[in-house]
Amino acid sequence: MASGWFYLSCLVLGSLGSMCLLFPAYWMQYWHGGFAWDGSILTFNWHPVLMVAGMVVVYGAASLVYRLPQAWVGPKLPWKLLHAALHLLAFALTVVGLVAVFKFHNHRKIANLYSLHSWLGIITVFLFACQWFLGFAIFLLPWASLWLRSLLKPTHVFFGSAILSLSIASVTSGINEKLFFSLKNATKPYSSLPSEAVFANSSGMLVVAFGLLVLYILLASSWKRPEPGILTDRQPLLHDGE
Amino acid sequence: MASGWFYLSCLVLGSLGSMCLLFPAYWMQYWHGGFAWDGSILTFNWHPVLMVAGMVVVYGAASLVYRLPQAWVGPKLPWKLLHAALHLLAFALTVVGLVAVFKFHNHRKIANLYSLHSWLGIITVFLFACQWFLGFAIFLLPWASLWLRSLLKPTHVFFGSAILSLSIASVTSGINEKLFFSLKNATKPYSSLPSEAVFANSSGMLVVAFGLLVLYILLASSWKRPEPGILTDRQPLLHDGE
Repeated sequence: MASGWFYLSCLVLGSLGSMCLLFPAYWMQYWHGGFAWDGSILTFNWHPVLMVAGMVVVYGAASLVYRLPQAWVGPKLPWKLLHAALHLLAFALTVVGLVAVFKFHNHRKIANLYSLHSWLGIITVFLFACQWFLGFAIFLLPWASLWLRSLLKPTHVFFGSAILSLSIASVTSGINEKLFFSLKNATKPYSSLPSEAVFANSSGMLVVAFGLLVLYILLASSWKRPEPGILTDRQPLLHDGE
Repeated sequence: MASGWFYLSCLVLGSLGSMCLLFPAYWMQYWHGGFAWDGSILTFNWHPVLMVAGMVVVYGAASLVYRLPQAWVGPKLPWKLLHAALHLLAFALTVVGLVAVFKFHNHRKIANLYSLHSWLGIITVFLFACQWFLGFAIFLLPWASLWLRSLLKPTHVFFGSAILSLSIASVTSGINEKLFFSLKNATKPYSSLPSEAVFANSSGMLVVAFGLLVLYILLASSWKRPEPGILTDRQPLLHDGE
């Protein structure tokens, strides 16, 4: 029954996640001319799509690996590898998303990193990089003691959720900023809620809904891999520690 | 020792919280002419100050009531009353902060609730209202059974943190939006990072730092009131349940 609810949540999460990928892509394709990699505004268009894909959708999926019922039993190492690999994919998408906006700014001689959106976003990506490298060094490489891992695990878990919350704040401020730019001289300004504004606002709300559901499953659900020492009938006596 | 760290965190939290109150107030006073309640732009100036005060600073303080070492022992009811009263103060500040922006918009015939900032903000306040009334009805009024309270407590705790995360997203997108408005026709635009931009961006980063520290103490610290049934030498045998 518990795993029935889990798979229902996965279905909702999968649908929301797919919409979080499709909505920004459609926004950029339909209202802003699509994509290119030539330094023009079409290069910028990769930015919202890849940041949402990397920092929200793939990041969210990667965070939830240990909540899969299959991950509750047996050796933890394959799931750790999947967790690290998916987060690396999320980070790669994020870096390309950042390169897109820097390339566009530099091509058009627009200043980088001046808005609060950009300050918040770059700090979020920096925290994500630190989290990935520390996680890799402490929880995946074999040198760290169980004591050190248990000491750092609550911090790793906290920053996992905190970075996702900051990503939501960065994405929503970014969509807001983009709409004020792109609808500035439009015949129907942002304040008259033209179809683009409704669509892009809805994309932002989808990101918020997806992020909140991921945080709920991470923080408040009972779908957690049992800790070593808390043995249930679902968990064999032998496991790979940590 | 644990309570030593707790009080050190409170000191940091108190300093960050005070700056979160002072920075937006100084921003509005120094760069935007101060405050009034006549429907002019000076009425709007209450909005950032009161939203940060209500949805972030007082909300954060109210959330942390049960983390006070004094709240770990003895009857829970006085702490519940303090928790509910502080959240009610936070809600009251928030409502006045919302009235300020609606009054200004209506006076100047500016549309309400069109930007993603406003969508996100109004949903956050709506969730806060639901959370307060449900919390009051279930956890403070005496009718609900212990079973119902234990069932709903994880959801109440989750939404407590989720609403704070959404407030951070609303505040940062709001500061970003305000700077694009107010520096639009300035001799030094936002992109040249004039002193107002640096100051207001820093206000946003202070709100983020304060919010993250509150979330850390809520989610990852060990400063939690022991649950009934988990008896330690700090907790007497008799307590008031829930």
